[in-house]
Amino acid sequence: MSKATILLMGMFYQPKLDELEKLYDCHRHWAAPDKDALVASLADRCEIVVTNGGRGISAQEMAQLPKLRLVACFGVGVDAIDLDYARQHGIAVSNTPDVLTDDVADMALALLLGTMRRIPQGDRFVREGRWLAGGMPVTRSLQRKRIGVVGLGRIGRAIASRCEAFNTEVGYFGPNRKSDVSYKYFDDVVAMADWAEVVIAACPGGPSTYRIVSRAALEALGPDGVFINIARGSVVDQEAMIELLAGGGLGAAGLDVFDNEPNVPAELIALDNVVLHPHQGSATHPTRAAMGQLVIDNVAALVEGRELVTRVV
Amino acid sequence: MSKATILLMGMFYQPKLDELEKLYDCHRHWAAPDKDALVASLADRCEIVVTNGGRGISAQEMAQLPKLRLVACFGVGVDAIDLDYARQHGIAVSNTPDVLTDDVADMALALLLGTMRRIPQGDRFVREGRWLAGGMPVTRSLQRKRIGVVGLGRIGRAIASRCEAFNTEVGYFGPNRKSDVSYKYFDDVVAMADWAEVVIAACPGGPSTYRIVSRAALEALGPDGVFINIARGSVVDQEAMIELLAGGGLGAAGLDVFDNEPNVPAELIALDNVVLHPHQGSATHPTRAAMGQLVIDNVAALVEGRELVTRVV
Repeated sequence: MSKATILLMGMFYQPKLDELEKLYDCHRHWAAPDKDALVASLADRCEIVVTNGGRGISAQEMAQLPKLRLVACFGVGVDAIDLDYARQHGIAVSNTPDVLTDDVADMALALLLGTMRRIPQGDRFVREGRWLAGGMPVTRSLQRKRIGVVGLGRIGRAIASRCEAFNTEVGYFGPNRKSDVSYKYFDDVVAMADWAEVVIAACPGGPSTYRIVSRAALEALGPDGVFINIARGSVVDQEAMIELLAGGGLGAAGLDVFDNEPNVPAELIALDNVVLHPHQGSATHPTRAAMGQLVIDNVAALVEGRELVTRVV
Repeated sequence: MSKATILLMGMFYQPKLDELEKLYDCHRHWAAPDKDALVASLADRCEIVVTNGGRGISAQEMAQLPKLRLVACFGVGVDAIDLDYARQHGIAVSNTPDVLTDDVADMALALLLGTMRRIPQGDRFVREGRWLAGGMPVTRSLQRKRIGVVGLGRIGRAIASRCEAFNTEVGYFGPNRKSDVSYKYFDDVVAMADWAEVVIAACPGGPSTYRIVSRAALEALGPDGVFINIARGSVVDQEAMIELLAGGGLGAAGLDVFDNEPNVPAELIALDNVVLHPHQGSATHPTRAAMGQLVIDNVAALVEGRELVTRVV
């Protein structure tokens, strides 16, 4: 029996990529000198695409692979994959949920604490020798803050439970009130931002949450407010956010995600009241290995005719 | 009735310093052109010294103030105050416990998460444009780590309870086993460091804990181990720590405190596997205000002949 053919659209965790490449007939799209020629050469036999959350795959790209049966995504967010096209053409889509929840929630807390207590700023303060000329200014405290979580899914809940250990009060916005939590519910993001002193975006990306943290929400959060984003750059009005951070209309931000990554606007990089991070929410060795294993398990399930392990579509 | 005379040995939170200076006849030691002349001029009437945890006051300095009845310390750590001299001469010492516990514990977690997930390094990675050339390397995870706390006092307990929210296992070293916690107890720091993947120093400073996190303890923690210090620079063998961090014998460190602050060795600043912070454990507006109020309350208690609010000696 010949090995299944896989088109690799996006890089993922190297040790698991190595494993996958040993098991199947894999082709790296990003490394191909002529990408169109590569895709054309695989069109008659490629049933599987492996991609990552940032890269995804467009309808146009899927259309070039008429035998495609599975898009296996390394990551939980599938907003860069055209799910409508996949549904309409009987293409399954898998992702890597659960295994990354805790590390992504940890990243939210790392950015929350790092932003409130100015950890990167303090590190610069010491390294640049400024401490020798006097102490660093006093900062905000996380204690007793009201924290509004946008999206109380798996990751949002993990963030909320961590926040409870810091004597904070948690509220959340989402399409539905959850019956199994006692956190304060808001059916409007602006109303939540008005109540909150910190807003943490933890919702999926895609059209339904595009710019859900609007200019009005950021203005409601206000001059002493803190915004944390571990979701997607698309969920916040980035232009308004930068303008408010620069002008004092928003206090501070801690950002793991951006519009059009890895391009971070110079206006954002120029600010001292932001903590910037290069989309590393799930980027720890144990979690990336577990995510890579889920990709391999979903591919194997398809090849062997079993049900996918973590199917989205 | 004339105002009580206070010698201010160390700076503290400005708004509360302003309040104190309005209430009493205050003299700033650090601002005096001739410090000896200032002290001599106050010797016949100065009953109160206000200092901070870093500055403290020596036996020699106390001896120059024969009327001294109170040293009010801004900070919980009184290791820079000669307590033996104070006891022998009937001088009371007060500090500012409890009000700073939560913010100092938050700082421990900020450094722990910042060190494990490389938050300042990620901020530099983005700001320096390195993300444009490829992703940041994958890091350690905090999840399921064994964390050994040196000193399970008020702050150590607050750190431990936060760590529980991150799916970690907590152990502790201290002079006595605590009957009211279920954390694993160690009567030896090296044994704890051998068991742990992270060691967090949260004990008081002073002679009893000098270099308690020894070279042997750091070696036991090992190449993948992480050391966090929000206690005092004196509690760790800083020279061994730097040597091990530079040579791969210790994985990483997050440090809010140092020997001989604010002087941080160039060898430490040169390292990429450390997160450095300029002794800001309690440095938030609400906590510094509460600490300053406790200083004022202790001074008022002495002046008005009441019992001190938070007496150490």
